[in-house]
Amino acid sequence: MSFCCCQKNRKMANAIRFLSADAIEKSNSGHPGMPLGMADVAAVLFTKFMKFNPQDAKWFDRDRFVLSAGHGSMLLYSVLYLLGYPDIGIEDIKNFRQLGSKTAGHPEYGNLAGIEMTTGPLGQGIASAVGMALAERVLNARYGDDLCNHYTYVICGDGCLMEGISEEAAALAGHLRLNRLIVLWDNNNITIDGKVSQSNATDQLKRFRACGWNTLNIDGHNCCQIEKALKKAKKSNRPTLIACKTSIGFGAPHKQGTSKCHGAPLGAEEIAAMRQNLQWDSAPFEIPTDILQSWREAGRRSLGEYQTWKEKAKSAGKEFNDVINNKLPKNWDKDLNRLKEESIRAQTKVATRKASEMCLEKIVPHIPEIIGGSADLAASNLTFVKGMKTITGDDYNGNNVMYGIREHAMAAVMNGMALHGGVIPYGGTFFVFSDYMRPAMRLSALMGIRVIYVLTHDSIGVGEDGPTHQPVEHLASYRAMPGILTFRPCDVVETAEAWQLALESEKEPCILALTRQALPLLRKDCAENLTARGGYVISGDSKNRQATILATGSEVSLAVEAQKKLEEKGIKTAVVSLPCWELFDKQDARYKNSVLGTAPKVAVEAASGFGWEKYVGNNGRIIAMDGFGASGPAGELYKHFGITADNIAKAVEKLVRK
Amino acid sequence: MSFCCCQKNRKMANAIRFLSADAIEKSNSGHPGMPLGMADVAAVLFTKFMKFNPQDAKWFDRDRFVLSAGHGSMLLYSVLYLLGYPDIGIEDIKNFRQLGSKTAGHPEYGNLAGIEMTTGPLGQGIASAVGMALAERVLNARYGDDLCNHYTYVICGDGCLMEGISEEAAALAGHLRLNRLIVLWDNNNITIDGKVSQSNATDQLKRFRACGWNTLNIDGHNCCQIEKALKKAKKSNRPTLIACKTSIGFGAPHKQGTSKCHGAPLGAEEIAAMRQNLQWDSAPFEIPTDILQSWREAGRRSLGEYQTWKEKAKSAGKEFNDVINNKLPKNWDKDLNRLKEESIRAQTKVATRKASEMCLEKIVPHIPEIIGGSADLAASNLTFVKGMKTITGDDYNGNNVMYGIREHAMAAVMNGMALHGGVIPYGGTFFVFSDYMRPAMRLSALMGIRVIYVLTHDSIGVGEDGPTHQPVEHLASYRAMPGILTFRPCDVVETAEAWQLALESEKEPCILALTRQALPLLRKDCAENLTARGGYVISGDSKNRQATILATGSEVSLAVEAQKKLEEKGIKTAVVSLPCWELFDKQDARYKNSVLGTAPKVAVEAASGFGWEKYVGNNGRIIAMDGFGASGPAGELYKHFGITADNIAKAVEKLVRK
Repeated sequence: MSFCCCQKNRKMANAIRFLSADAIEKSNSGHPGMPLGMADVAAVLFTKFMKFNPQDAKWFDRDRFVLSAGHGSMLLYSVLYLLGYPDIGIEDIKNFRQLGSKTAGHPEYGNLAGIEMTTGPLGQGIASAVGMALAERVLNARYGDDLCNHYTYVICGDGCLMEGISEEAAALAGHLRLNRLIVLWDNNNITIDGKVSQSNATDQLKRFRACGWNTLNIDGHNCCQIEKALKKAKKSNRPTLIACKTSIGFGAPHKQGTSKCHGAPLGAEEIAAMRQNLQWDSAPFEIPTDILQSWREAGRRSLGEYQTWKEKAKSAGKEFNDVINNKLPKNWDKDLNRLKEESIRAQTKVATRKASEMCLEKIVPHIPEIIGGSADLAASNLTFVKGMKTITGDDYNGNNVMYGIREHAMAAVMNGMALHGGVIPYGGTFFVFSDYMRPAMRLSALMGIRVIYVLTHDSIGVGEDGPTHQPVEHLASYRAMPGILTFRPCDVVETAEAWQLALESEKEPCILALTRQALPLLRKDCAENLTARGGYVISGDSKNRQATILATGSEVSLAVEAQKKLEEKGIKTAVVSLPCWELFDKQDARYKNSVLGTAPKVAVEAASGFGWEKYVGNNGRIIAMDGFGASGPAGELYKHFGITADNIAKAVEKLVRK
Repeated sequence: MSFCCCQKNRKMANAIRFLSADAIEKSNSGHPGMPLGMADVAAVLFTKFMKFNPQDAKWFDRDRFVLSAGHGSMLLYSVLYLLGYPDIGIEDIKNFRQLGSKTAGHPEYGNLAGIEMTTGPLGQGIASAVGMALAERVLNARYGDDLCNHYTYVICGDGCLMEGISEEAAALAGHLRLNRLIVLWDNNNITIDGKVSQSNATDQLKRFRACGWNTLNIDGHNCCQIEKALKKAKKSNRPTLIACKTSIGFGAPHKQGTSKCHGAPLGAEEIAAMRQNLQWDSAPFEIPTDILQSWREAGRRSLGEYQTWKEKAKSAGKEFNDVINNKLPKNWDKDLNRLKEESIRAQTKVATRKASEMCLEKIVPHIPEIIGGSADLAASNLTFVKGMKTITGDDYNGNNVMYGIREHAMAAVMNGMALHGGVIPYGGTFFVFSDYMRPAMRLSALMGIRVIYVLTHDSIGVGEDGPTHQPVEHLASYRAMPGILTFRPCDVVETAEAWQLALESEKEPCILALTRQALPLLRKDCAENLTARGGYVISGDSKNRQATILATGSEVSLAVEAQKKLEEKGIKTAVVSLPCWELFDKQDARYKNSVLGTAPKVAVEAASGFGWEKYVGNNGRIIAMDGFGASGPAGELYKHFGITADNIAKAVEKLVRK
């Protein structure tokens, strides 16, 4: 390995190395290999290239940095501290990985200013960075170079590149020619289980070129090469992958270059040897004054640009400032409210996916931030509405993304867009295929960001495509996931209400589970957004009820049908629609009791019954799916699986007569 | 497009085309585009290359065929019918996509002889085919060319290649140089939403070459080119991707080459025009005698090879015949039973991941079928035990796969291995990252095959790595999934019992959720495999109990601790360990009631409480996680989230005193 000609950068980098090694040692937990290996690259990137202002970490036109290899978190914490971000002090570094500390094991969005996203699950960072780079180009196209003109940088490791999501994301970035995206690959030949060559023989540069990327290959410990490569990458007309050949754990004399330094503290002895090896005399958590000063100066590098931008932004007009501050336009849902009223009047009977399309037609024209899309199912998810325009590599001034058959990248890219800000992403696929994007959905929920998942074909109502295409366990699995709202509306009104809530849900991503098949209009009025309550009595006599029928989505109409049959037999029931369990659970006990009542309960859902006991209680009855679905016409499937108004009515009658 | 010189193959192919188009028309649902587009390729492949015997569809040494683009199911059904598979008649073709029919919307494993796997979710087929090709090479290395010597063919579309899993699988296949794998890509430039170029600019051949594949590029309607390419591919020392340039919906004069024929019936008019265009005079579901005869002859092509193999297999010895017939060796779990006894004697306190390793040490030497592995976490999942040998591209005679950081491909490859037979795969990763493999896990469950998921680091017990690495919703999400058994053992004995059940579970895949942290030995005896009951009273007085504490895995020891505290206060409790809800739910009511009792219940689990109401009832209490975890030492996290013996004891006391 050639040693870097630039002594200063090496010293700057060593500050990262020792902060990282010492913090990991102190916490007796962490991953030193990457921070030590990529310190030279990070030093060049942050002191010579990145545009940011530590005093205003959320500056809209800053460059974004994503540590896709999130286990190397100490690299990021060290850099943020060294640059002078006021949100992080040396005490935070010392508290690495302690409960309540800002310096968590992996970078956590919202924990500390300067963390652009939560990373750790491999491949997510690089894919979400594609979303950031895409949002940047879209807003640049809309508002011009003066207001939006920045780069997205990523540090990733072999793990990120082996994950399939990296391919989806790279292919999309290449297709869209996102040339403001620059990925620095920590090409250290080592994974947790040993040498990369044990599990991989892929020529990564060739692969990325196949996806339409510019690629460069450098010595990641040579600052001149790093600088030259970054300069080149910034001028490329394509996204760039820079393979930085590094030695994992660089500087730790006995462990560098091996998997031993990947995921465990180096040990006191090795750190002492590393001090000698790198000629670093400072005590743990002390940085030589001149080096700290140089870092702090670097932290002030972009202040001029910042001031200029502030002036420009001030005079940029209301829309731009609203957009970057997450303010929805006034009365954005005026047409949506009208749609509800009209649907009640017309008794509109449509699939809720169609209802969603009708909603989007009323929403999209009012909200410039919206960027829709689908993973090659636009015609089924009904996500592309009149007036929308698809974003291409030649013209970013659109509001629809054709994600291709890449559900996982779609979700991760939407995360990146939401994190970038200035846009509100929604994306569609079949509900059952949300499995493909679950890791990214979990991150949406964990980060608490506004991403909207339009998931259609939400039950055996899918019909002939059969069990591979019929979700069963999905509702339960998302209801069990913290931090995400799962809506399953029963008609046009509830669908519109769900859209209203989803767009105003700044801190929680939302799922809209929508039917393939047509559903009757059930709501009688729309004065209040009842979906906001999570659940409510949609039909029947809540005071004198002898039983309560609980349902969501397509099964609410079955419940109402059953109610009529029971009425004929003189049995009074209330039908409760529960479009969003999470919101219902947040209501006060009095409200919940008033909805659920004390009479016996029957729940019905064309999905796994798992979890319904919560509402139905010990003595109720759950009519649901026991196993997977089947291939056949939807109507026949409902009968075959016993999810019918007759069965509901029978179950209620049995409970009531008991 | 050049027309094929071989008139006969075209006619053979047209038989597929019309069976497909007519069946889809009759069912008024389905995907004609692919069967019509790939009919020429399929005709060459099945009449000139594939080795199989319709009379013995499960012939072990047959070539495997995977229709990764499962929506083109009518291609497969047509071929199986034409070749004379007795399991499918013309009536089955006419019943395409009807409830209860063998010819489901997508091919479903087990529905019909000749379907090698369930496909539909894109990318799964190509990835599982890698597992089939790998199993073939492993068994070839063990048992020789006479007994195991076949190819795995795949037909996939653009969708499969855009899915990230295709990259993971391709990279693994390239790394392992699985040259018996031949993928035929239906390169038709069309996806559901239109032209591929709208969402993709990847040079697929270059990408596959970067992954170490051999690639070929042909006209998919020219039978000479198809034949030549397949011959070449069979001789390659690497896996081969053959790009077959086709016209989607070939033959349908007004719709071919467009997305219009992808996923909807062609319509009577277009089919009539297609009859004229392709000079096909036969009525729907009628095949000209000479053509049917040629197909049936092709179906008998491999009979000689079949007979030879049968003879060889007869004299191949017990191990080979047991292995291919899924018979575990006698007394395979003898050492495992001893381990249980010794652990009770020694009161062994270890993490259940360590317990799993101890089990594997006692299992692997006895079961030649086992093929273990991990997605680059072998040292954490403890899946690689002494005596195991890693499979490489130079030496397939091993029993461990280094999957790399490719969880999704790992799961799909395991599916392929299990489907191939002769091997029993298990694979490890962190429980939280099971999200990455969920689509493939769902297929394991849907197909009902023996795949074992070793998922360690199963709760906030992960500690410092924080919420990205701490599963919360995962237990609930798998309990909600049909067809899969989720085990969460509490000590060495339960871990060994879970391994016994998993290895004997031929029809259901199993999850072993295992701890990072050490757990005390709780079981007092091991005469009966109590985990097989799903749940049982592990400690305390089940007759005179005043309360029941329910728990799984690491929380069972907390429950037992709480029990002691309560005992001191004179409160009698029973602690129920519920290592497998699915098995417990299958017990009869009497047994379940005897375990659960009628006293008030407190459940405790370091995970989402979602679903526990089922056992705890209306008046019980659930001590669980309300949201995501956090970064910090594990012990502190348990306290922070209130999952402690003290809290359990308090909750019980409150219920009892009420």
